[in-house]
Amino acid sequence: MQQRGRFITLEGSEGVGKSTNLAWVAEWLRSRGVEVVCTREPGGTPRAEAIRELLLSAAFDEPLDADAELLLVFAARAQHLAQKIRPALERGAWVLCDRFTDATFAYQGGGRGIARARIAELERFVQQGLEPDLTLLLDMPVSAAQQRLQGRLQTKGEIKDRFEQEQADFFEAVRREYLSCAAQAPERVAVIDVSASLETVQAALATCLEERTREWL
Amino acid sequence: MQQRGRFITLEGSEGVGKSTNLAWVAEWLRSRGVEVVCTREPGGTPRAEAIRELLLSAAFDEPLDADAELLLVFAARAQHLAQKIRPALERGAWVLCDRFTDATFAYQGGGRGIARARIAELERFVQQGLEPDLTLLLDMPVSAAQQRLQGRLQTKGEIKDRFEQEQADFFEAVRREYLSCAAQAPERVAVIDVSASLETVQAALATCLEERTREWL
Repeated sequence: MQQRGRFITLEGSEGVGKSTNLAWVAEWLRSRGVEVVCTREPGGTPRAEAIRELLLSAAFDEPLDADAELLLVFAARAQHLAQKIRPALERGAWVLCDRFTDATFAYQGGGRGIARARIAELERFVQQGLEPDLTLLLDMPVSAAQQRLQGRLQTKGEIKDRFEQEQADFFEAVRREYLSCAAQAPERVAVIDVSASLETVQAALATCLEERTREWL
Repeated sequence: MQQRGRFITLEGSEGVGKSTNLAWVAEWLRSRGVEVVCTREPGGTPRAEAIRELLLSAAFDEPLDADAELLLVFAARAQHLAQKIRPALERGAWVLCDRFTDATFAYQGGGRGIARARIAELERFVQQGLEPDLTLLLDMPVSAAQQRLQGRLQTKGEIKDRFEQEQADFFEAVRREYLSCAAQAPERVAVIDVSASLETVQAALATCLEERTREWL
């Protein structure tokens, strides 16, 4: 029987370099013979990406209620799990996902102030026990991450989405909650300091992956 | 202090004549000096209407997971409650809503087969105790309602949405669950037989409204 694949998530605020590091981790795994499915949240399937648009859009002349935001995040997650993540894991592929439920605790919990217990209720409802085997939390001070984000937006000429428009105290709360998730589940979450050079970061990722995936490969 | 308004919902499957009867009930209330806000679910606010589009759209090349559908319904409801229903009730207006949580039990419960307890969990999560003061369940046999729906779609040249595309056994299950909601909460839900003539139906609505709203007006 085919062994179930592993579920690895990358977490971190805007500007910490998730995309670059996600591609690097995918390559690292592939070079070890693993089939890797790269995906992201919110989104990852056509209907879940449409929900992502609703979540990020600042174009409505109406604020988005915090509970509605939270339920949209979990609606997208239910779709993503049913249509992409669970089927991939079941056929033995590894899933590498840019953000998952730690982001919900960080953004909707830390950022929006929704109680941890309410988020955990929906987590149970939707995931029914499924959680990542490994989470890489890319961490750096908020001011540095915000600078990188600004640089990226200027280079690409992009407009800030609903979350990117938030202020520094929002991102401080997001970072605090992310670090709290890591402290509560050290066996699952590895914190990677990404304020160093890319070379140093990738060396740290390699060490972490060697150690954490040794028994799975 | 301004007295809180009353929350009245109209329920029933496609083709039972909700729109016509909703307008009639609104007129009945307005003629008694009540400020009435007419609205609908899923939807009722710009962001909630955008969620409605996602729910009804058959244009995606991907099925919508039942849990994702349920969470989208409650996301729209949270937004509608926060932005429209609660503020209207608090300023003393009455809210008359085309479908609410009984429809979730009927469609996502009866129709999709999601357990009643799971739906009730999200109901508590989102509504935190708020429920309609009165629900008018417009009921008729499924075959007759389907005929009316077909007639309407042909006249207007409309294409069936994701729910209208379902088969007769889906709508039988929806009707059964609606009647079960009524049987479980007879003090809140009044069943109106809408298979009779419009005149007879409106006489029944008038009798019901006289009796149920007497202490509120």
